[in-house]
Amino acid sequence: MNAPGPAFPATQPDQVFDWLDAEATKRTEAGLTRRLRPRGPVSDELDLAGNDYLGLARDKRVAGAAAAASLRWGAGSTGSRLVTGSTELHAELEHELARFCGTQAALVFSSGFTANLGAVTALSGAESAIVTDKYIHASLIEGCRLGRADVAAVAHGDPAAIAHALATRRKRRAIVVTDSVFSVDGDLAPLRELSEACRAHGAALLVDDAHGFGVLGAGGRGAVHEAGLSGEPDVVTTITLSKALGAQGGAVLGPRRVIKHLVDTARSFIFDTGLAPGSAAAALAALGVLKEEPDLPGKVLTAAQGLANGLREAGFRVSTPYGAVVSVQAPSADAAVSWAAACAEHGIRVGCFRPPSVPDGVSRLRLTAHAALAESDVERAVKVITEVAPRGARG
Amino acid sequence: MNAPGPAFPATQPDQVFDWLDAEATKRTEAGLTRRLRPRGPVSDELDLAGNDYLGLARDKRVAGAAAAASLRWGAGSTGSRLVTGSTELHAELEHELARFCGTQAALVFSSGFTANLGAVTALSGAESAIVTDKYIHASLIEGCRLGRADVAAVAHGDPAAIAHALATRRKRRAIVVTDSVFSVDGDLAPLRELSEACRAHGAALLVDDAHGFGVLGAGGRGAVHEAGLSGEPDVVTTITLSKALGAQGGAVLGPRRVIKHLVDTARSFIFDTGLAPGSAAAALAALGVLKEEPDLPGKVLTAAQGLANGLREAGFRVSTPYGAVVSVQAPSADAAVSWAAACAEHGIRVGCFRPPSVPDGVSRLRLTAHAALAESDVERAVKVITEVAPRGARG
Repeated sequence: MNAPGPAFPATQPDQVFDWLDAEATKRTEAGLTRRLRPRGPVSDELDLAGNDYLGLARDKRVAGAAAAASLRWGAGSTGSRLVTGSTELHAELEHELARFCGTQAALVFSSGFTANLGAVTALSGAESAIVTDKYIHASLIEGCRLGRADVAAVAHGDPAAIAHALATRRKRRAIVVTDSVFSVDGDLAPLRELSEACRAHGAALLVDDAHGFGVLGAGGRGAVHEAGLSGEPDVVTTITLSKALGAQGGAVLGPRRVIKHLVDTARSFIFDTGLAPGSAAAALAALGVLKEEPDLPGKVLTAAQGLANGLREAGFRVSTPYGAVVSVQAPSADAAVSWAAACAEHGIRVGCFRPPSVPDGVSRLRLTAHAALAESDVERAVKVITEVAPRGARG
Repeated sequence: MNAPGPAFPATQPDQVFDWLDAEATKRTEAGLTRRLRPRGPVSDELDLAGNDYLGLARDKRVAGAAAAASLRWGAGSTGSRLVTGSTELHAELEHELARFCGTQAALVFSSGFTANLGAVTALSGAESAIVTDKYIHASLIEGCRLGRADVAAVAHGDPAAIAHALATRRKRRAIVVTDSVFSVDGDLAPLRELSEACRAHGAALLVDDAHGFGVLGAGGRGAVHEAGLSGEPDVVTTITLSKALGAQGGAVLGPRRVIKHLVDTARSFIFDTGLAPGSAAAALAALGVLKEEPDLPGKVLTAAQGLANGLREAGFRVSTPYGAVVSVQAPSADAAVSWAAACAEHGIRVGCFRPPSVPDGVSRLRLTAHAALAESDVERAVKVITEVAPRGARG
């Protein structure tokens, strides 16, 4: 049997990726080109862009734990968590995370991204319905896309819409998926109402508490804990170890049988190398700091509210911060980029979110508050942003 | 308007996850339950399970670099690579990886898993066809599932089947996706023939060289380099930093425009926290060791061939190792588990692969060779495995 002739003609090898150039041109015209800007180890800049909310990434107790663990356990975990990649450090971290948040168990992944992929896919499947807030984090969306569940993404922050979607689903098994603090605008999902909707309709609730853990709730136990839902038998929480804890990695917290199910079936757990021992040790040390200093999270909220109030008074369209994230709307992607660049020239590093990182297509300056921000830092930031984006330039 | 009544009745919160227990029972009956076995920092066991092929995870130069970088740069990267998560360490690592392998550019991800997700999704899309070997790694499969491309998974190790699928595709744009060294059996994809098929049909080639990089090719430059394809304008390679380099993370190597495209569009890059500085520094130091000791990779192959030959002579069904992976077929999942447990009792740690980690459903002992294995280690391993799985017990 002869192979059929080519459906499309051979091209020169160096033409195969020509389509990427056309895509790049489109992005350039839309102001959506990105450039990596590697930073040095220390900086004079005022950081209003990073997610190290509690300043623990460079805390000596945390960085020191990472260093000591790298020397003692090695630089890498050497394998899948199911083969050689589970160390006693991982087990201790899982035990302590569960105890801190009041859940039966926890499971550490190499990132919050893979934790979300694993939780969504393993807890849904072809026999399931998934109902989500349409502004959930990209990693949760990828989890929804990966499975074969029926997926309904409903209006943002609308428990009635969630309930309606649950009521009209075709699959008996169902899970509602939401962020707690939404990453773009920093607003908080109505977790208690979502839980009520879930219970009225026999659904589970999965909350990504990446921006709530370490910032909200008693001593930083997170938004799910604050809503009284941590440890509930129908609630699963994902967190990241790379924001408030200043390390790397992610985790899923929930009932023991959920965690066991993830160990057996979550592909982003089974087929990934375990988190590096240094990162596990750093997260464990950061959790220890959080327990010792339960007032730390409150300082983040004070700073965030100071930023939001100052910028709102200056006339900006500013989100109401429930956690560390303060978002300032810009008239265009180009304006957001040029505002951020001007802030950098004034020694202030701010985030710049543009499509596809913004679910509503509105570009923004995205500020993150930190526990160590002084009142004078907040004032300086407000002053600089007001200067680089005078009223007439705000579109 | 009233909300519709529930499609399915409310359940008690503690019943929502009852379906997980039924699933767990099925797995137990099929011998597919997994258990995490946290290990200590040092072990007397002979490790034939981990992926630290060159023994670099615990090398003082590598672990020391991780420790020093954690102290100097902090325990975490503090943000997305596009915000605050790119350090000069990441940039240097990318530069050195590209230079070592002879590609125009490289991009570091937080894991090989997310590197594969990012590469497959960003280089395909709704206007594309993807043709894969059906035994590709789970992370590549997830990448294929995530996109909206036409996906054809063809017979294992069969370039003619790949060519046929390319010839009969409906979309002009196409990419062929394969592992180099396949993770379960350790066999090698026919990379040159695959490249020829791609070129005859105007397709790009994406190779996951996770098990080839650091083991195959001149000085460990990998299977793609060995096949003369590194640096070609139509070839993209993914690697992991967590196997031969003993660290954590992954990378994509290829033409500059491909890397630029990933920075702008790969969701598993944009929406993930950057790799921890300690892991980036460890990978960079390991790459330095590899350059200084170009004979290290050859020792892995010698050990792998010794294991395979010894076990084959003892009557096992053993794969031919092209890299570090040696796979030994078992008659059932239960047999594989009990063989592995018996090896552990004799002080030898071997991997045990069962569904869904084996694409053909055949359970296996999976051994990995390491550069530091002495001939006497190989002989001891063969002796123990032969004893724990006598001929009559091999099914």
